[in-house]
Amino acid sequence: MTINRDRLRWNGWGLIAMEDHVSSRPEVWRWLESELAMPALTATPALKLEQINLPPPRLSAEALAALTAIVGSANVVTAKEDRAFHARGRSYADLLAMRSGAIEDAPDAIVYPRNSDDIAAILKLAGDSAIAVIPCGGATSVVGGMTPLRAPGQTALIALDMTRMNRLIAVDRQSMTATAEAGIYGPDLERALQAQGVTLGHYPQSFEFSTLGGWIAARGAGQQSNRYGKAEHWLVSARVITPAGAWATEEYPASAAGPRLTDLVAGSEGTLGVIADATFRVRPQPAHRDLRAYLFRSFAEGAEAVRTLAQSGIDIASMRLSDEEETRFYQTFGRIGEAPSFKRRIEAAYLRRHGLAEKRCALIVGTEGERDEAPRAADEARRIIRRLNGLYVGRKPAESWYAGRFHGPYLRDPLMDHGVGVDTLETATRWSNVENLHEKVRAALEGAMRANAPVPGARGIVMGHISHSYPDGASLYFTFIFPRRASDEMAQWQAIKKAASDAIAAHGGTISHHHGAGCDHAPWLAGEKGETGMAILRALKSTLDPKGIMNPGKLGV
Amino acid sequence: MTINRDRLRWNGWGLIAMEDHVSSRPEVWRWLESELAMPALTATPALKLEQINLPPPRLSAEALAALTAIVGSANVVTAKEDRAFHARGRSYADLLAMRSGAIEDAPDAIVYPRNSDDIAAILKLAGDSAIAVIPCGGATSVVGGMTPLRAPGQTALIALDMTRMNRLIAVDRQSMTATAEAGIYGPDLERALQAQGVTLGHYPQSFEFSTLGGWIAARGAGQQSNRYGKAEHWLVSARVITPAGAWATEEYPASAAGPRLTDLVAGSEGTLGVIADATFRVRPQPAHRDLRAYLFRSFAEGAEAVRTLAQSGIDIASMRLSDEEETRFYQTFGRIGEAPSFKRRIEAAYLRRHGLAEKRCALIVGTEGERDEAPRAADEARRIIRRLNGLYVGRKPAESWYAGRFHGPYLRDPLMDHGVGVDTLETATRWSNVENLHEKVRAALEGAMRANAPVPGARGIVMGHISHSYPDGASLYFTFIFPRRASDEMAQWQAIKKAASDAIAAHGGTISHHHGAGCDHAPWLAGEKGETGMAILRALKSTLDPKGIMNPGKLGV
Repeated sequence: MTINRDRLRWNGWGLIAMEDHVSSRPEVWRWLESELAMPALTATPALKLEQINLPPPRLSAEALAALTAIVGSANVVTAKEDRAFHARGRSYADLLAMRSGAIEDAPDAIVYPRNSDDIAAILKLAGDSAIAVIPCGGATSVVGGMTPLRAPGQTALIALDMTRMNRLIAVDRQSMTATAEAGIYGPDLERALQAQGVTLGHYPQSFEFSTLGGWIAARGAGQQSNRYGKAEHWLVSARVITPAGAWATEEYPASAAGPRLTDLVAGSEGTLGVIADATFRVRPQPAHRDLRAYLFRSFAEGAEAVRTLAQSGIDIASMRLSDEEETRFYQTFGRIGEAPSFKRRIEAAYLRRHGLAEKRCALIVGTEGERDEAPRAADEARRIIRRLNGLYVGRKPAESWYAGRFHGPYLRDPLMDHGVGVDTLETATRWSNVENLHEKVRAALEGAMRANAPVPGARGIVMGHISHSYPDGASLYFTFIFPRRASDEMAQWQAIKKAASDAIAAHGGTISHHHGAGCDHAPWLAGEKGETGMAILRALKSTLDPKGIMNPGKLGV
Repeated sequence: MTINRDRLRWNGWGLIAMEDHVSSRPEVWRWLESELAMPALTATPALKLEQINLPPPRLSAEALAALTAIVGSANVVTAKEDRAFHARGRSYADLLAMRSGAIEDAPDAIVYPRNSDDIAAILKLAGDSAIAVIPCGGATSVVGGMTPLRAPGQTALIALDMTRMNRLIAVDRQSMTATAEAGIYGPDLERALQAQGVTLGHYPQSFEFSTLGGWIAARGAGQQSNRYGKAEHWLVSARVITPAGAWATEEYPASAAGPRLTDLVAGSEGTLGVIADATFRVRPQPAHRDLRAYLFRSFAEGAEAVRTLAQSGIDIASMRLSDEEETRFYQTFGRIGEAPSFKRRIEAAYLRRHGLAEKRCALIVGTEGERDEAPRAADEARRIIRRLNGLYVGRKPAESWYAGRFHGPYLRDPLMDHGVGVDTLETATRWSNVENLHEKVRAALEGAMRANAPVPGARGIVMGHISHSYPDGASLYFTFIFPRRASDEMAQWQAIKKAASDAIAAHGGTISHHHGAGCDHAPWLAGEKGETGMAILRALKSTLDPKGIMNPGKLGV
C-alpha cells in the first residue's frame, strides 16, 4: 500500500481534503494583524497548477526508452502534476516558488524503482548519460533537500521516487530489529510492525507523508526520540545502491572493526547513493501512554527540569518545553473569539496564585511502556518537576497536543494565502549553552523580521521550544511568523533565514538537529564540519559517486 | 602524572612488581597438564632484554635533530628499553615475538609531543621525510595495532607516544561532558574526574595501562558498558591532528547536518591522524555499586536472561555470563589444592538440589547509582532472572570477580613461561545468532587447538562469556588455552587464530567487538566492510594521510 499522490497537495502540506479551520474566521486574521502590527493583511493566494508553466522535459527519447526498459512504463512518469509535485520539497522557500509558479526547474521524469536491481540499472544509465538523480521518499524536505539542481554538463534530471519499494522485509523478534524497504511510508511501516507487536516509534511531524529512507537520509527525529532515538540511533545497517556499487553496511550490535561506516549513511541525503533498505531497532509496541502537562515561570526553570530529567535515566518518551512566547501564542490562538467565562476566570486566578499570571512556559512529558512503566516513570518525573518549581496542570493540554501533533504544517497554507509567512528552523547545543542560544536566535529572528517587514513598524512572532533532549544537550526549535513582503518575498525569507543561521553558527549550535542540510543549510555546513570535514565529505562523494549524479548541490558537495 | 615505564614489563603485562601467584605451585601445572592432556609441560622462559638484539635505528641524524628541535631532547628517546617496550603491542603474537627476541622491527625513536602544535610539526616532518608514525598510548593493543610496519620507501619509523599529553582540560557540569588530552591514563583520568564528582565509567581490562585516546582509536568497551557505553557511544567530539591538517569534529548532542564525522574517529586506530584531545559524556560518580551472582543450567538459559535484561530498560551497569566451560574452569582453578571441606559438601548438595550439579553457567550482574537506584535495579533484575530459572548465589562470587577484574592478563606471563599459550578473542552478533556463533567459534578453536597440538591427543581449553550486551545483540568473548608447540609457535597461533576468525566471519560475527582491527584482523576486514566499505576507508586514508605515514598496514589500508 502507498499513498495516492492525487490526494496530496502538490504545492502545500498533506491531504487536499484536510479541512481548513482558519480561513473563514475573520477574528483570526484581525488578531494576527494586531500581533504582527500590520494595518491589514493582504490576500496572497497560490496559483493553480493550470496557471503554471514547468520547463519542458529535457530527457532524451533514448534515455526515456532506456528507463522504461528498466522499470516498465508504469514506473516512469512525465505528467505535469507529477513533475510539479516533485519539483521541490515542502520548505517555506519551496512553497513560495511553487505557489507563485517561479519553479526554475523540475524533474524531467519521475522513475519508480521496484527493487535494488532497478536502482543499480538506473544509476548506471544515469552515469553513462549524465543524468542527475534525486532520490526521494515523500518529498517533505523542509531544507531544499530535493531542489532539482543540475551540475554542469547534466542535461537531464530525474526524481527517483522510492515509494513503490515499500515492503516490511523481516522482523527479528529475538534481536528486536526489523528490515524494510526504504520507500515505505510511516503509517504503513508502523501498521506492519505493530501487527507483529513491535514499533519503531519514530513519529516526526511529517510521519504520515514521509518514508523510512527519508528519515535516515536526513537524520530525522521523532517526537518520542527520548525513548526511541534519532534515525542514526535506531539505524542498525543499510543497503545503499551507489553509482560505485552496492554497499551493505555492517550489521552488528557493536563492533571495533574500524569506524562504523553505517554512520555515513545517516545524513547522506541522497548524495552518495540510494538507500534501498535498512535494518533498525524496534521495541515492543507500548500498551500504555501517559501524557502530562506542567507550567514553569520561565524558560530557564523549565529547561533545568528537562535537563534534570534527560540526565536522570528515567525512561521518558518525549519532553516538549515551550518558551514564554510559544506558550502565550498557542493559548491565545486557541481562545480567539472565545467569550469570557467563569471557567477561564478560575483558571486565571489559579495561575495568579502560582505566580504564573504574567509569563509561563508549558512542558509536556510523555512516557510509554508495556505494563506499568509509563505511569511509574511519569510519577518519578512529576516528583522531580515539582521539586524544580513546575506546576502540574493535568493531562488535557498534553493530550490535546498529542492529538494534533501532525496538524501543525497544515496551518502554513492558509496563513500563506492570507499574507502571512511562517517557517520553522531548529538547532541543538550542549546544555550549558541552551539558554544563550535560545536568546541569540530569537533576537536574530525578531530583528530580521522587523528589518524586512513590508511596512515600517510591522513585526514578526518568534516561538521556541525544546523538543528533543539528551544527557549532554537539547534541540531548540523555532517557529517564526511574519507579514509577507509581496514585492520580494524570497529575499525577505532569505534575509530572515540568514540572520538566524548566522546566529546559530556564531553561538555554538548545529545548523540542523533533525531537518537536514539540503541546499538551505549548505552555506553553513563548512563552518560546522571544518575544512578537514568538508574534505572528507568530498572524498566520500567522489568515491561513491565519481560522476556527481547523486542529488547535486546538496550537503555542500 | 603518568606511569613510569621503568615499572612496567617491556615484554609482558603490567607492573614488574606484580606478584606471581602460580609459578611456584606445582599442583597448578599438574592440573593444567591433565586439562590439556599433555604428558608434561616444558618450561619456555622469555629472553631477557640484554639477550635480545633490536634492529639498529634507521632515523637519520637530521631527522633526529629536527624531532628534537620540535619537542626538546627530553621528549625524544632512542634507548633500547624504550624501543623494545614500543616494538609491539601486548597480543599473544606480540609476546611470542618479544619473549623470543624475534622482533623484526622496532621504532627508531619514541617521540613525546607536548601539545597539538608538536603533533602537527612532527607529522609535517614525517611527511616530508617519509617517516612512518605509530601513535600510541599505553601500547596495550592485543590485535597488532602498533606493529612497526614500514610502507615501501619509508626508511624511518617513530612511535608517537601520547602519554605526556595527559591533562583533564575541562568539565562541563551542566552538559555532563568533559574534555581531556588523549594521552591520559585511565586511573589519572578517573581520579581527575571523580575529584569533580563525575566519572567516564570506562573500565576495560587494560584500564590501568591504557589511555583515553587508545580507547577511542580502537573503539574499546569498559566492563560497565551497559551503563556507560562503548567509546563510540560516549565520544562527543575529538580533535585529530592529521597530516592534511587539524580536524575538530562536530560537538553537538545531536545533529542532522550531514553524516556525523566524529564516528570516523572511533576505530581509526591511528591510520588517519593523531587524536589530540576528546570531549566525552560523563555521569555522576556512583555512590553505590551492587554486584550479584547467579547460576543457570545452560548457556542458552543464561543468554536468554541477559537478552531479556538488556531489552528491559533496567539500568544495569554490567552483565557477564560465563559459559559452562568458563564457569567450570574458574571454579576448579580457584580450588586447586583445596582440601575437601564441610562447606564444599554443602555447596555441592545445594547445587545438586537445583539441578546444577553437572553443568552450570555463572552470571554476574552489576548495577550502579547515586542513591537507591543500584539496589532497586538489582532487585528488578533479580526478579526477572528468577523467572528465567536463574539461581541467586549471593554477592561474593560477583564481588571477587570485581576485585580481580584487572588481574586476568597477569596470568598470561607465567603460563607462557611454563609451556602454555593463552589468548583471547571476541566478536559480537545479533541475539538470534548468539548461541550459534558461540558454538561455531568454540568448535573452531577446539578443532584448531587439537590439530595444532604439540603432541598427538593433546587439546586446548575454550572458555566463553558474554560481557557486553545491547538490545539487539551481544559480544562473545573467548579465552583459549593450549600447550605451546615449541618448534613453530607462531604458525600454531596463526592456525588457531585463523580458524576462529574464519568461523566468526562465516557465521555472522564481527571480527572484533572491542579489541580493534590492527594487523591481526586486517585479513577479515574486507569481508566485513565489503568492497564499497573498503573503498571508503581507502578514500578517508588518502584524504587525511595522502603520504601514508600514519600507522601503515593497519585497518587494511
